[in-house]
Amino acid sequence: MRVIGIDPGLRNLGWGVIDVQGTRISHVANGICHSDSGDGDLARRLVSLHRQLTAIFEAHAPETAGIEQTFVNKDAVATLKLGQARGIALLVPAQFGLEVGEYAPNAVKKTVVGVGHAAKQQVDHMVRLHLPGATIAGADAADALAIAICHAHHMQSAGRLQDALRRAAG
Amino acid sequence: MRVIGIDPGLRNLGWGVIDVQGTRISHVANGICHSDSGDGDLARRLVSLHRQLTAIFEAHAPETAGIEQTFVNKDAVATLKLGQARGIALLVPAQFGLEVGEYAPNAVKKTVVGVGHAAKQQVDHMVRLHLPGATIAGADAADALAIAICHAHHMQSAGRLQDALRRAAG
Repeated sequence: MRVIGIDPGLRNLGWGVIDVQGTRISHVANGICHSDSGDGDLARRLVSLHRQLTAIFEAHAPETAGIEQTFVNKDAVATLKLGQARGIALLVPAQFGLEVGEYAPNAVKKTVVGVGHAAKQQVDHMVRLHLPGATIAGADAADALAIAICHAHHMQSAGRLQDALRRAAG
Repeated sequence: MRVIGIDPGLRNLGWGVIDVQGTRISHVANGICHSDSGDGDLARRLVSLHRQLTAIFEAHAPETAGIEQTFVNKDAVATLKLGQARGIALLVPAQFGLEVGEYAPNAVKKTVVGVGHAAKQQVDHMVRLHLPGATIAGADAADALAIAICHAHHMQSAGRLQDALRRAAG
């Protein structure tokens, strides 16, 4: 079972792909999709993110996707900006017919580190421990791998892995 | 010159297409793309909106697009939800190679009604006056037509209509 995790963002959108066999997980690939004002206006940046993410789905063919739930804060302009990028991050897996699991940051930390209020460095450390030998593209890619691990864990514990495999096969 | 206006929303996404010849405008089509929880989770709703809006672009072949700037408010969850739909509304025109103009609600009202703080009914009334004979699908479609009128006006006054026509031709 191949799982992709996505950490949405307009400037830096982290992604990480892992393989899951029973209780074993292994690293496939990870990286960060970038868009900045040099790519043009907001609409062009969203097209750029859509193209990059689509290429990753074509290259790695994930069978199920997890995405971080956005922490909405008091900065409404930042929330709107992130929302627009998150729209693309949700669209692409669904365009490939995948179900998308959404996980709160604390749920991701709890799965990967064991506690909900772990520091960012702890998450990064545990991701490297779970996926030995992986070269990680940056903090957003490490977060995305953590989301993938969390999604794999939740699908297994909910017995939904088999369902998803059946859907992917049929 | 064919202009589309888009009023983004997750549940109701209004759109309106007009033709502009010199200072004359005429109605082409308008409608509302719907998505609700019956269509599935958020990712599926975004795919549904993307499909509907793509079909409208294919059917009516607009050459330039205007979209309403989102009014960010204190309800962060609503802002995020709208942002995700807005990401799709920005993505589709850019995927068709169109430039997307963004207009604040007050700028749209000022163009269509003459004052920035006009009531919604006034906008609706003026849109019907500008586009006699048009059957308007609802309030969100009327808003979208107002955005199209605003975009056409701004492109003309900025002398950008010719540029856009050249780009569309070349």
